Amino acid sequence: MGAEKVMLFAGRSHPELAEEVAKHVDVPLTPQSTYDFANGEIFVRFEESVRGSDAFVLQSHCAPINTWIMEQLITVDALKRASARRITAVMPFYGYSRQDKKHRGREPISARLVADLLKAAGADRIMTVDLHTAQIQGFFDGPVDHLLAQSLLASYVGDTYGDAPVTVVSPDAGRTRLAEKWADHLGGRPIAFVHKTRDPDRPNEAVAKRVVGSVRGRLCVLIDDMIDTGGTIANATRVLLDEGAADVVIAATHGILSDPAVERLSGCGAREVIVTDTLPIPEAKRFPALTVLSIAPLLARAIREVCEDGSVTSLFDGHA
Amino acid sequence: MGAEKVMLFAGRSHPELAEEVAKHVDVPLTPQSTYDFANGEIFVRFEESVRGSDAFVLQSHCAPINTWIMEQLITVDALKRASARRITAVMPFYGYSRQDKKHRGREPISARLVADLLKAAGADRIMTVDLHTAQIQGFFDGPVDHLLAQSLLASYVGDTYGDAPVTVVSPDAGRTRLAEKWADHLGGRPIAFVHKTRDPDRPNEAVAKRVVGSVRGRLCVLIDDMIDTGGTIANATRVLLDEGAADVVIAATHGILSDPAVERLSGCGAREVIVTDTLPIPEAKRFPALTVLSIAPLLARAIREVCEDGSVTSLFDGHA
Amino acid sequence: MGAEKVMLFAGRSHPELAEEVAKHVDVPLTPQSTYDFANGEIFVRFEESVRGSDAFVLQSHCAPINTWIMEQLITVDALKRASARRITAVMPFYGYSRQDKKHRGREPISARLVADLLKAAGADRIMTVDLHTAQIQGFFDGPVDHLLAQSLLASYVGDTYGDAPVTVVSPDAGRTRLAEKWADHLGGRPIAFVHKTRDPDRPNEAVAKRVVGSVRGRLCVLIDDMIDTGGTIANATRVLLDEGAADVVIAATHGILSDPAVERLSGCGAREVIVTDTLPIPEAKRFPALTVLSIAPLLARAIREVCEDGSVTSLFDGHA
Amino acid sequence: MGAEKVMLFAGRSHPELAEEVAKHVDVPLTPQSTYDFANGEIFVRFEESVRGSDAFVLQSHCAPINTWIMEQLITVDALKRASARRITAVMPFYGYSRQDKKHRGREPISARLVADLLKAAGADRIMTVDLHTAQIQGFFDGPVDHLLAQSLLASYVGDTYGDAPVTVVSPDAGRTRLAEKWADHLGGRPIAFVHKTRDPDRPNEAVAKRVVGSVRGRLCVLIDDMIDTGGTIANATRVLLDEGAADVVIAATHGILSDPAVERLSGCGAREVIVTDTLPIPEAKRFPALTVLSIAPLLARAIREVCEDGSVTSLFDGHA
Amino acid sequence: MGAEKVMLFAGRSHPELAEEVAKHVDVPLTPQSTYDFANGEIFVRFEESVRGSDAFVLQSHCAPINTWIMEQLITVDALKRASARRITAVMPFYGYSRQDKKHRGREPISARLVADLLKAAGADRIMTVDLHTAQIQGFFDGPVDHLLAQSLLASYVGDTYGDAPVTVVSPDAGRTRLAEKWADHLGGRPIAFVHKTRDPDRPNEAVAKRVVGSVRGRLCVLIDDMIDTGGTIANATRVLLDEGAADVVIAATHGILSDPAVERLSGCGAREVIVTDTLPIPEAKRFPALTVLSIAPLLARAIREVCEDGSVTSLFDGHA
Amino acid sequence: MGAEKVMLFAGRSHPELAEEVAKHVDVPLTPQSTYDFANGEIFVRFEESVRGSDAFVLQSHCAPINTWIMEQLITVDALKRASARRITAVMPFYGYSRQDKKHRGREPISARLVADLLKAAGADRIMTVDLHTAQIQGFFDGPVDHLLAQSLLASYVGDTYGDAPVTVVSPDAGRTRLAEKWADHLGGRPIAFVHKTRDPDRPNEAVAKRVVGSVRGRLCVLIDDMIDTGGTIANATRVLLDEGAADVVIAATHGILSDPAVERLSGCGAREVIVTDTLPIPEAKRFPALTVLSIAPLLARAIREVCEDGSVTSLFDGHA
Repeated sequence: MGAEKVMLFAGRSHPELAEEVAKHVDVPLTPQSTYDFANGEIFVRFEESVRGSDAFVLQSHCAPINTWIMEQLITVDALKRASARRITAVMPFYGYSRQDKKHRGREPISARLVADLLKAAGADRIMTVDLHTAQIQGFFDGPVDHLLAQSLLASYVGDTYGDAPVTVVSPDAGRTRLAEKWADHLGGRPIAFVHKTRDPDRPNEAVAKRVVGSVRGRLCVLIDDMIDTGGTIANATRVLLDEGAADVVIAATHGILSDPAVERLSGCGAREVIVTDTLPIPEAKRFPALTVLSIAPLLARAIREVCEDGSVTSLFDGHA
Repeated sequence: MGAEKVMLFAGRSHPELAEEVAKHVDVPLTPQSTYDFANGEIFVRFEESVRGSDAFVLQSHCAPINTWIMEQLITVDALKRASARRITAVMPFYGYSRQDKKHRGREPISARLVADLLKAAGADRIMTVDLHTAQIQGFFDGPVDHLLAQSLLASYVGDTYGDAPVTVVSPDAGRTRLAEKWADHLGGRPIAFVHKTRDPDRPNEAVAKRVVGSVRGRLCVLIDDMIDTGGTIANATRVLLDEGAADVVIAATHGILSDPAVERLSGCGAREVIVTDTLPIPEAKRFPALTVLSIAPLLARAIREVCEDGSVTSLFDGHA
Repeated sequence: MGAEKVMLFAGRSHPELAEEVAKHVDVPLTPQSTYDFANGEIFVRFEESVRGSDAFVLQSHCAPINTWIMEQLITVDALKRASARRITAVMPFYGYSRQDKKHRGREPISARLVADLLKAAGADRIMTVDLHTAQIQGFFDGPVDHLLAQSLLASYVGDTYGDAPVTVVSPDAGRTRLAEKWADHLGGRPIAFVHKTRDPDRPNEAVAKRVVGSVRGRLCVLIDDMIDTGGTIANATRVLLDEGAADVVIAATHGILSDPAVERLSGCGAREVIVTDTLPIPEAKRFPALTVLSIAPLLARAIREVCEDGSVTSLFDGHA
Repeated sequence: MGAEKVMLFAGRSHPELAEEVAKHVDVPLTPQSTYDFANGEIFVRFEESVRGSDAFVLQSHCAPINTWIMEQLITVDALKRASARRITAVMPFYGYSRQDKKHRGREPISARLVADLLKAAGADRIMTVDLHTAQIQGFFDGPVDHLLAQSLLASYVGDTYGDAPVTVVSPDAGRTRLAEKWADHLGGRPIAFVHKTRDPDRPNEAVAKRVVGSVRGRLCVLIDDMIDTGGTIANATRVLLDEGAADVVIAATHGILSDPAVERLSGCGAREVIVTDTLPIPEAKRFPALTVLSIAPLLARAIREVCEDGSVTSLFDGHA
Repeated sequence: MGAEKVMLFAGRSHPELAEEVAKHVDVPLTPQSTYDFANGEIFVRFEESVRGSDAFVLQSHCAPINTWIMEQLITVDALKRASARRITAVMPFYGYSRQDKKHRGREPISARLVADLLKAAGADRIMTVDLHTAQIQGFFDGPVDHLLAQSLLASYVGDTYGDAPVTVVSPDAGRTRLAEKWADHLGGRPIAFVHKTRDPDRPNEAVAKRVVGSVRGRLCVLIDDMIDTGGTIANATRVLLDEGAADVVIAATHGILSDPAVERLSGCGAREVIVTDTLPIPEAKRFPALTVLSIAPLLARAIREVCEDGSVTSLFDGHA
Repeated sequence: MGAEKVMLFAGRSHPELAEEVAKHVDVPLTPQSTYDFANGEIFVRFEESVRGSDAFVLQSHCAPINTWIMEQLITVDALKRASARRITAVMPFYGYSRQDKKHRGREPISARLVADLLKAAGADRIMTVDLHTAQIQGFFDGPVDHLLAQSLLASYVGDTYGDAPVTVVSPDAGRTRLAEKWADHLGGRPIAFVHKTRDPDRPNEAVAKRVVGSVRGRLCVLIDDMIDTGGTIANATRVLLDEGAADVVIAATHGILSDPAVERLSGCGAREVIVTDTLPIPEAKRFPALTVLSIAPLLARAIREVCEDGSVTSLFDGHA
């Protein structure tokens, strides 16, 4: 570690991940008092001096998401006022990342708002994993370390299913580029995607789904950046199986798994569902086909590189 | 109203108050779609153009408080991006106002943070009622209209109990100045306060409470800016009755009424508990001795004055 | 028009478009002196008072692109110092929009930089057409009016080729979503895209191109947001024809047409190439198959709506 | 001291205190030329390089207060332009701290203004002693080290008068909380305060003063944060003696002592008046009953802790 | 006047000028309470609502200059917090304008600091007269109306001395450009300047003064932007007379006239000394040869033009 | 060098100077990929980690000047996002420095704009040489190291022509102060300047030029900060020779040498023209009488002093 005092701070959203990161960085979590007042206001106090520290504030933006965002902002404010030298907000999952543009008029761009709020509170830097769109890096006025977990997932899939006739499938038109990267990573596999459309032959009927690309007899690796309620991905699984896919494996970085995701995923016919633990996944949500990979080593390596003024880019140079 | 288009926007925290304010301002609430995604992220869209508007965004900071603060920030962001000309955040109760200083080292100043977040989101002005400390006005870099509901409460108490031998009592040392203002408003009444202390004669024993000022045989009007769990105020009521007070009436602007406030207040012996509806008070919390005064007329008058470039000060010149 | 004085200012990049916009807005371009010093420094002076104006500064970011960006910044600075009341930077094509993220480490995010420079110079608002990615809206800290020319193009294509068996094709994996929107606009057409890949059967060979989706016998409408040197789009055309497409029509909003675009496009076998005039297209670049649609009416309507505090969203509500 | 070069700079307001602080920090004051032009403009130049320094700029905000504030701002500006790495404005007394809110409409919040001016000039941090209200910490957008001299004063009073029957008295309703802290510090003493009121029995007569709490036969320790002209405190002394107090001792952190404070204090009947030297107290103002405690050791310890990234909180953990 | 409410505010530095400006603008000065606390802190409160106003805050930066600057900052802060719509700081003389660069290392640039302080307090615009260097316009981040009083002075001189053989003389090398403008204004007169130099023939002797240009038998109009203590200008007068000048007339915009300016100017042999009243000139400083021209009409016309969104440039187009 | 990693970055404007500076600083230029897209957009990527570095970005603002300014801004943005600790923009010649004020109304102040753009991109500090006016230092909100090359030039002139009867001449009224400094540096030489005027005896005729000061039989050293097209300086040379000057030597820091400067300078009769290489001077512009002095040692010493937190002032203490 560098000459400055590296200190890790953990919000209450995902203590297991914070502990594991701390273990890998080999720096203990700084003790702090955090509790709620009766009306829900959050209070934070650090139990030791943080002056001059190079502070990393870990918080996963899971439900109740607004509470955890506010907690992170309050922690950053407290660090600023307590003379921390540099403050990095670490968000394994970046909340509101889907609201990254105005889809129609008179909407917020909440992903930019989150960046602005962190800046206003006093964050100097951001570290996050697999943003919904990479452009969100440009929302923050300062350095953003954008870590890629896709290679972690793709390596697992390659090791497990590499011998099968894999086709990489995007569940909608918007993730086709991502599917292309996966296909490269897995050694030049074909790709396909599920296309939501009005049926041209029956224009008065409702939206239908068609697979663009051939999947018959293939092991379809259905990829995405996050799984929230699982509707899109479960539907896509069924469409693929209907189109003759031999099998479907689902892989996504962020397992939000809001209800009824577990029900949908465990019942959709997919052989395996692979996510990382950027968000906490309680026991109750762990169904048999679910595999959870640990993101802690990646975060810890990035934190170490940042502290040593090394290169975070090197963390994913191989495949990204 | 002025030449610009006045528009009112309501968060989901306290729709009754928003409706009532809109009625008094005589401007309808602008229709908007606000809902939560499955993982708790909030989405907002306005159903009509807000370009060039003089926008007022009403939100009461009640539980779940962090959610409502984020909703207000997101609404302000959406207004900014949709070209509203001026944005006023109206907070009948200003969340986190109690964290207005570092009580000890390494704490946040969350009340300042809230002001900074509103500024970062795009708010030009703030309107609020009876701040925990008036210094919070200085936390926002812009105009703050600080409305005083104390005269509303004091007038009610004067009308109801004016003939009784009233003593105004502060429940602790920090609200003595407020008690003094009430005493003036009620026509020069005596004041007292409850003092938390180590007993000088038994220094090794725990903290005791003593009344400073005489309350025997008096109708004690126990005042505060807010009632959260009601512990302090219920204890103070009991101490006053123990000291021989004839009766106790409680008056506070903000009825947070977190559990177990209702139980404590209804059982502490107070004759009447008077609050305003800056925060929503559901039926389940309305016990017989509770009186709720409407804050909507005061807010509406202030909004009208702001739009007409009139003087908000005149709203409380009489007694504040 | 509203009570404020609307004034239009034109940089030297694309005078024809500025004149046409002015005609449609029905406000003359404000006379100004703009010239270069011998060493290339740009000088600007307005010939009449701009105090209190609602100023729109039109500049197309074509080559020499850095010169025109600086000219726009200098014009905005001059307006700010001359007391314009509100300044909108109008960029029919937003320069550097392709550098909207760090593709690898240690790169700039120049699209964010352009937004920051405009803000630093004094721009209050931005108006632009068909951004490379919609997230760029979030790079500017203020209102962004993002106009969509896709419906202009799609309507033209629909009118001209609506009876043919159209398939909408994205030239690479990144524009598939856009193809989906086109397909909807044209009445539920099938879509396809060109996939750049290592051939899975010959892994040691170079990158190959494959079409995902079926195009045989179809009229392929190959769409993109911009055509720069035309390499990708010309290659895609050839791949489509090789795969048996009946015909190929190319449509893109921004005709950058850097060398050797004209050569490539006129020789690639496409039946028609359709662009708008967001960027100037000199006579020398107008080859027989090229159709140029005028963007001026769309810009003019948006400017009028902004001045009248109307809704720009309504400009594209039908199809976007 | 840390790796960076600690440098102390002193304005001309209170050279004795600066010298004493420098002695305790064991770092000499950096030589600088500071003088006034004929029209009162202040000029500053440092006689040695300040690049990369951790700079502390000491200035007491005494009369002529606006001159000393401007001198501090100019010094901070010069340090910023000369590449100091971190600039801390040290204000033993924070000027304009009484204007910390709008008492009525259309007033400045000058305490916030002072914070903003320091920020605009280039100050990164603030260090100050016993703010008029602790909320002023929140006026500065950055770290504020708020030192408490009350324990210095209270220890002196405890040592000197600890055996007497002490009652701690606030001179008005606004300092009751402070009195409570003193009472705790002195071992659980009773408290009282002087209440300004319209006499309820003679409503048409002028304001009267009443003591709330019992003081008969007690040694009253009358406390405040500052003594300006001494009117309030001298009147309170007289009221206490009238009410039968055995004796009155006055203690306040900041001895502003504007005319006619000396006359009032020396003639009001108080046995001892205790202040610190946060502000200069010239010989002419030193009357026999006045005791001046040195604040330099406290400031010096805080500066050392800041430089060593230690904990300033520990400076007053015992009693604050 | 425009649709907005124009309001004029006057600091206490130069009430006569403020009254005269108000008369010419035909808008009364807004009544306000401004006074000093015993320790010199300034307090301001407006006696009527300023919401939505187009506010002009007049203050001459004369001695005690730091006090008047702070008063102007506090007034601007109060206007900002009271919801004025636009705030223009009017400084007939811009204090600290001579400190507009670092003459050597480790100095402030106080003229920039003054601009930053005004911005931090809330000023949107600046209006001033004859800056020491025109580059100071660039120190403020916003519109600056820079009025030129030189034509007022030059017209007076032309009317009075136009028939004489005038040579325009700069008192040092730095004002030669200004002399050239005067010479043009007066119809192509010759110019000269006084050169401070080490004598090349006697290099070991002290600095000498030489006139560059011929002045023998000429009426020398010695010009400058300000006269502070009058040393330079009085010396220059004597050098000119020694070199055979027929007569000397002195003209400068800002009559600071710090001691011993009156003594020097009245004894230096100049026939007339002409200044404006941008700064107050008390009776005691009005010696027989002094002529004071009124600046109020120029300021009033500029304020009117600003309010009507007209052109301030037209105020001095003839000669500047 | 200090503890931090000093890194040098060079734009493409003047690679020879960058290499020479790097050699003198003894730190290699950091390898980077910089190239233009077909439409002129610039792309930058660093080939090694820059985290935590003390980065200096060298760019000469020569033609195409807007391109090089944008390249410098983009490089600074990339450094900011890649976590450089401190970024210094080094501009041997500061572009747009002549537009340092509004000469008339409704003009930009482009020199301030350049400072604001650098700040917005992320520059912490500026280093430059011989600004057109020293006030430009105040345009940047942060430290500016303003190096003086005049002593380099003056020393060369002194060594070469010190025995001749030198008169220092300013080519117009605006550089007279600079001439005075040269005269001092050369040991108390006389000065003169060329005065542009309407001839008072023939007022209807065009502008004439007159020399103020005597030059007959003298070696005139004609000085300026920059030579652009050379018109002014070549004319001045001819006027001096017409007035009987024995010889003319021209010296200026910045050799912009836009066409037709070479033709004018080589044909105007000057004996020698001396400039530095703050701007690249290609072989084609090097005519026999031209002498080019190297600025690299001065820049290198300044960079070293900055890194070592030493005093840049000492670099020119002798004469500036």
